[in-house]
Amino acid sequence: MALFSGPLPLVPPAARRKGEGGAGPTVVALGGGHGLSASLSALRLLTQELTAVVTVADDGGSSGKLRRELGVLPPGDLRMALSALCDDTDWGRTWRDVMQHRFASRDGVEGSLDGHAMGNLLIVTLWELLGDPVAGLQWAGALLGARGRVLPMASVPLTIEGDVLSEVHGSLRVRTVSGQAQLAVAAESGNVSNVRLLPPEAPACKDALEAIELADWVILGPGSWYTSVLPHLLLPELRGALCRTSARRCLTMNLSNDTKETQGMSAIDHLNVIRRYAPDFTVDVVLADPAVIGDRSEFERAVAGMGGRAVFGTVGVSTGKPVHDPLRLATSYNDMFGEN
Amino acid sequence: MALFSGPLPLVPPAARRKGEGGAGPTVVALGGGHGLSASLSALRLLTQELTAVVTVADDGGSSGKLRRELGVLPPGDLRMALSALCDDTDWGRTWRDVMQHRFASRDGVEGSLDGHAMGNLLIVTLWELLGDPVAGLQWAGALLGARGRVLPMASVPLTIEGDVLSEVHGSLRVRTVSGQAQLAVAAESGNVSNVRLLPPEAPACKDALEAIELADWVILGPGSWYTSVLPHLLLPELRGALCRTSARRCLTMNLSNDTKETQGMSAIDHLNVIRRYAPDFTVDVVLADPAVIGDRSEFERAVAGMGGRAVFGTVGVSTGKPVHDPLRLATSYNDMFGEN
Repeated sequence: MALFSGPLPLVPPAARRKGEGGAGPTVVALGGGHGLSASLSALRLLTQELTAVVTVADDGGSSGKLRRELGVLPPGDLRMALSALCDDTDWGRTWRDVMQHRFASRDGVEGSLDGHAMGNLLIVTLWELLGDPVAGLQWAGALLGARGRVLPMASVPLTIEGDVLSEVHGSLRVRTVSGQAQLAVAAESGNVSNVRLLPPEAPACKDALEAIELADWVILGPGSWYTSVLPHLLLPELRGALCRTSARRCLTMNLSNDTKETQGMSAIDHLNVIRRYAPDFTVDVVLADPAVIGDRSEFERAVAGMGGRAVFGTVGVSTGKPVHDPLRLATSYNDMFGEN
Repeated sequence: MALFSGPLPLVPPAARRKGEGGAGPTVVALGGGHGLSASLSALRLLTQELTAVVTVADDGGSSGKLRRELGVLPPGDLRMALSALCDDTDWGRTWRDVMQHRFASRDGVEGSLDGHAMGNLLIVTLWELLGDPVAGLQWAGALLGARGRVLPMASVPLTIEGDVLSEVHGSLRVRTVSGQAQLAVAAESGNVSNVRLLPPEAPACKDALEAIELADWVILGPGSWYTSVLPHLLLPELRGALCRTSARRCLTMNLSNDTKETQGMSAIDHLNVIRRYAPDFTVDVVLADPAVIGDRSEFERAVAGMGGRAVFGTVGVSTGKPVHDPLRLATSYNDMFGEN
């Protein structure tokens, strides 16, 4: 009896060899959500030695539901990072679209799956099968032919908490807000302070610590300042690795200062948040779009106060929306890698 | 600026060329559920020209929920068929396990995903993205490196309906039962008659009709007799194709006659169900395990009445459970292909 193989009409990407197509700097990009996706979409054009380290404090939407129901890491930001790294072939793009697909029931029907992103469910399935967040993400990355790898910042779900100062009937009031989704909303109506992660001494992902130690560059931001960027400096083991590494450090600013989480804050206020929470964290470069920097020399002085130099680049999309353009951002990063 | 590809640690199966490893007969296997899976697990060892045609009348469990909420074909039996055809490599087995994974919430938490099979969600996502059931199944098959292809019997969801005769307080009562899940339950307590599909003139899947026309062999069964085997003969276009094809026709019997759906029925009663609903359907071979055939010559006469000959083979697993053993079933099919 002969064993036969059937035809395979659709072609998955062939396995790539390490080093094929030339190397590139070893880069670790830290963040979460859309900001990290933008960063990865740029960096994947410049290097094959790319690691994304992703926040795991989300508690809203599909991710929050899965976290509560199944006791897993919130997969949403990890899914977005993987999608940003997908192979640019029919195969890669199709599975990326599958990962990003959201279920919505027919009109008038209440659906058990409403709002869930398919990729979240796929990642959670791999976690449940393999029992290891890192291995599960590696398999999801293999499906997408991802260029680089995606790691959670910690191997346990985190909760982000902060004190919000707001004016109620003319008097100031401080209240503690727990949960990333709630905190982002609360920040709209008041200043956020004393942001912290629970559990406070959660272990960072070992592979992430190792990647930071071995990197040529670590890039923090862009992204929601309090809930996607700052958390990486709040986890003690991760902050330690970021401060200790011999890699060059880049902080990439947002394209809009006045976001939901950061109303009324200037670019320098953004830097001061980082300095206040992680005084021992120095930078080599702060990459900023000139459009969102008020006085350039004032900004340069603030960056110098963190040990680095400011690099200005027009990195937004041409429509003027505060969204990073992958090619413009890649150009700035490429120049930066060459100059340092 | 150079474009780089990252390393891919996990290796998807390489695309296979049609005809690679030698041909095999062109086979169409029709059925649903566990019976069809058993059939495919055997046939995949014998040929690379394999098409599964699968019932789409399920309305229970995860499939029923998706059908109601999203208005799609019930994906469960299609998922099981794909899983039976998965490539026998780390890659194929891992994605098969992902497809077959079922979600279950933590103790005390009611989960939105409870009971859903991951593969059902993946197939539905591909359908929603691609807008074509056949193309969606082709992509799911490519992920698994499936040997052969899986098609729905119709491109619209079907409803199976039947009249159930039962004794209530000493008097006979006929009631119409609608839906595969309900019918299977109702059949436990009474005889099923007048089984039909709604809509009665639903169009069969064009690719399935073509596959049947071009096949060397069509194999119907094993499987739940009324809800997985018979439906293929109830859809007019599909019955027409099965009766007209120049392919040889094999009917594979179950390993237990006395199932939920067929209580008190003998093997010959099973044949008579087929003859009653599709009098123009003839067979070349009926494959049966001698353990479930009462009088051999009586059975042979009944098969001759359908135009064919009975072939006996010990095809169950060695534990004695009424489950087909893939290698034993493959051996019987292989002999059958050689002799006819």
